[in-house]
Amino acid sequence: MANAPMHTLYSMQDSGNCYKIRLVLALLGIPFKLHDIDILKGESRTPEFLAINPNGRVPTFKLDDGRIIPESNAAMWYLAEGTDLLSDDRYTRAQILQWMFFEQYSHEPYIAVARFWLHIMPGGRAEKTNDDIAGWMERGNQALQVMETHLTDTDFFAGNRYSIADVALYAYTHMADHGGFDLAPYPAIGAWLDRVRTQSGHVTIDWRPDVS
Amino acid sequence: MANAPMHTLYSMQDSGNCYKIRLVLALLGIPFKLHDIDILKGESRTPEFLAINPNGRVPTFKLDDGRIIPESNAAMWYLAEGTDLLSDDRYTRAQILQWMFFEQYSHEPYIAVARFWLHIMPGGRAEKTNDDIAGWMERGNQALQVMETHLTDTDFFAGNRYSIADVALYAYTHMADHGGFDLAPYPAIGAWLDRVRTQSGHVTIDWRPDVS
Repeated sequence: MANAPMHTLYSMQDSGNCYKIRLVLALLGIPFKLHDIDILKGESRTPEFLAINPNGRVPTFKLDDGRIIPESNAAMWYLAEGTDLLSDDRYTRAQILQWMFFEQYSHEPYIAVARFWLHIMPGGRAEKTNDDIAGWMERGNQALQVMETHLTDTDFFAGNRYSIADVALYAYTHMADHGGFDLAPYPAIGAWLDRVRTQSGHVTIDWRPDVS
Repeated sequence: MANAPMHTLYSMQDSGNCYKIRLVLALLGIPFKLHDIDILKGESRTPEFLAINPNGRVPTFKLDDGRIIPESNAAMWYLAEGTDLLSDDRYTRAQILQWMFFEQYSHEPYIAVARFWLHIMPGGRAEKTNDDIAGWMERGNQALQVMETHLTDTDFFAGNRYSIADVALYAYTHMADHGGFDLAPYPAIGAWLDRVRTQSGHVTIDWRPDVS
């Protein structure tokens, strides 16, 4: 069915937010097309792309019927409904969302942003002050400590089972060292990263779907 | 049934994130107890409160059976399931989440944070630089422009109906002037604020439940 309509992911390969959706699609065995958008070349700010997502961000997920879902965590939720990556239990769903909002508010703005300026953006270090970096370190380590405390008692973030809450937090945590974070003081996080990596169907951030 | 178990909201009255949950509880007619936490007095960082929410933030919502839901948008989702404030349609649910994640990532960190430092925190202005304020203004106005563009075509954020996506964005938008934002250039936002205010069961940020 090579010509059947397929979902399309507008994605930058290096982005952890984009990786989240690729990982969920791989885990669920859902075929999709990848459309590369290089934000460093301004490709998320072209008129063509802003017509797709007026907020000018990747990932942007386009369903096979043409409807658009911006925001990585919203697209993961859409894909995971009815699968083992979400839950039939109302309280577990709230816990999954709790950790996904934690990730976007208390984790990503420090751990992913540090990685962007120190590792992804050429010359990015020179644009930031030592105070910027100290702030990322302080708040990022606070987020890691919240995760460490939680994972001391449980194997996964919600419902005692691998879910999209784990995918959301795995994306930038597993490459936190790119932003200068040291995970050695967080052994429960280390063990959880290993549990995520050994899930059936796991793919790394380099993985791309095999479609033309 | 004054002695029946009741939900408890750990809340700071001035906080828009706390107001979101009070508004949803009021709209749905759900009784609850309010437990005031003054973050300016460090009450969200006491050992007692950290035992409830290790991330040390309000709102924290406690169900009548004692289970905890941190994160305003996760608690709203829990309360709204099965009601008209959410949706039975999978794509509409994804759109509601899209706007709730937009609010926490692209809106709240500028519009609510500006309000906190310039309006809520005594002496807060002196702790921030002109560059801080300029950054909040630039990114906050970007978020308002994304909202304005969307609302030019539709009355509400998702599913053509009032939902928790509107509640999430109303909370800090309706008092954006506290952080120095001018909503006059955003007439579609102004009309939407009026539509939210005239919903049946609407309460203002000052409202408190009538329980002892």
